[in-house]
Amino acid sequence: MEFSSKLLENAVNEMSQLPGIGKRTALRLVLHLLRQPKEQSFLLAGALQKVREEINFCKSCHNISDQELCEICTNPMRKKELICVVEDIRDVMAIESTGSFKGLYHVLGGKISPMDGIGPQDLNIEALVERVKSGAIKELIFAMSPTMEGDTTNFYIFKQIQDFDVTTSTIARGIAAGNELEYADEVTLGRSIIDRVPFEASLKL
Amino acid sequence: MEFSSKLLENAVNEMSQLPGIGKRTALRLVLHLLRQPKEQSFLLAGALQKVREEINFCKSCHNISDQELCEICTNPMRKKELICVVEDIRDVMAIESTGSFKGLYHVLGGKISPMDGIGPQDLNIEALVERVKSGAIKELIFAMSPTMEGDTTNFYIFKQIQDFDVTTSTIARGIAAGNELEYADEVTLGRSIIDRVPFEASLKL
Ligand SMILES: [Zn+2]
Ligand SMILES: [Zn+2]
Repeated sequence: MEFSSKLLENAVNEMSQLPGIGKRTALRLVLHLLRQPKEQSFLLAGALQKVREEINFCKSCHNISDQELCEICTNPMRKKELICVVEDIRDVMAIESTGSFKGLYHVLGGKISPMDGIGPQDLNIEALVERVKSGAIKELIFAMSPTMEGDTTNFYIFKQIQDFDVTTSTIARGIAAGNELEYADEVTLGRSIIDRVPFEASLKL
Repeated sequence: MEFSSKLLENAVNEMSQLPGIGKRTALRLVLHLLRQPKEQSFLLAGALQKVREEINFCKSCHNISDQELCEICTNPMRKKELICVVEDIRDVMAIESTGSFKGLYHVLGGKISPMDGIGPQDLNIEALVERVKSGAIKELIFAMSPTMEGDTTNFYIFKQIQDFDVTTSTIARGIAAGNELEYADEVTLGRSIIDRVPFEASLKL
């Protein structure tokens, strides 16, 4: 692609670094911005700069947060002895939108995936084990996507914490196997939390 | 969508202003940036800010350019008496990539589209008529997408300049009717410029 402007070329190249955005799409997006009032580009640029510069992760659950501890962790109405273990902040948002869960979360930041070179040490697993060791937690709900990587991650964590006095469960397989959690509809996802089964039982399915 | 962070919410909202980018896609893109080194976000933010702030349009052909006159207009090897009239800078890029055209361009910046509230006064048509009036132009090639709006725009310009000593042609309809010019393959697009037909003849097709 030959550009008539270095400024344009730069903007298109940077935009096309985003996943799923090819050069043509990037060009279409940048030309769109050029036709809009300047403020739109400045607001977008400012928001992207600021979110990356100032983003913070909750010290307890690793959810994205603007404070040291997120609003869920500091909410006195939430059950602090019940922890839902999720892959990603999008899963927190999906579960929160069901209104079915009143406990806290633990965001792993991914799942164990040897194919992608992601091992347990790349995830927030040690911090989770520490939370369990502290003795304040009565139950862990594994809410990973029901894929091979999700199952592997659940099992790895289960082995780390099985000797502690904590109940483990997985969300009910109302979600079709192999599907990503975040695309589940709210009713199914909410139901699957209520119908959670002991983790050991889930191993026999 | 409930966000755990205002910074995140802002970034997602601004990103989802872009055409074809919904809230979910915007969230996926912003979370991707948060997992990458900070520099990637800063380069993207900087490039978007800078392109919108400093972008310049060629005074002669209205192509995007970093100088007062673009590299095509200032190239002594190009035929200055032959002008290809296009809708958009993407069409300039598409035609340049064929290597079939050695003249100059005139970028209208859109097409006449009453449905979208775009009239002749919203496009760089007057400047084109001035270029024709100056007497330096021998031939205009209309290279608008062969859609109703493209045909309307061609015809409107044709009526404005038909009394001047200038030949008009349209690119050959090797491009399937109703398709956008920018998606044509290079061979077809190159061929359609070589096979251009007098504009009056095209009216009878
Ligand atoms: Zn938290
Ligand atoms: Zn120019």
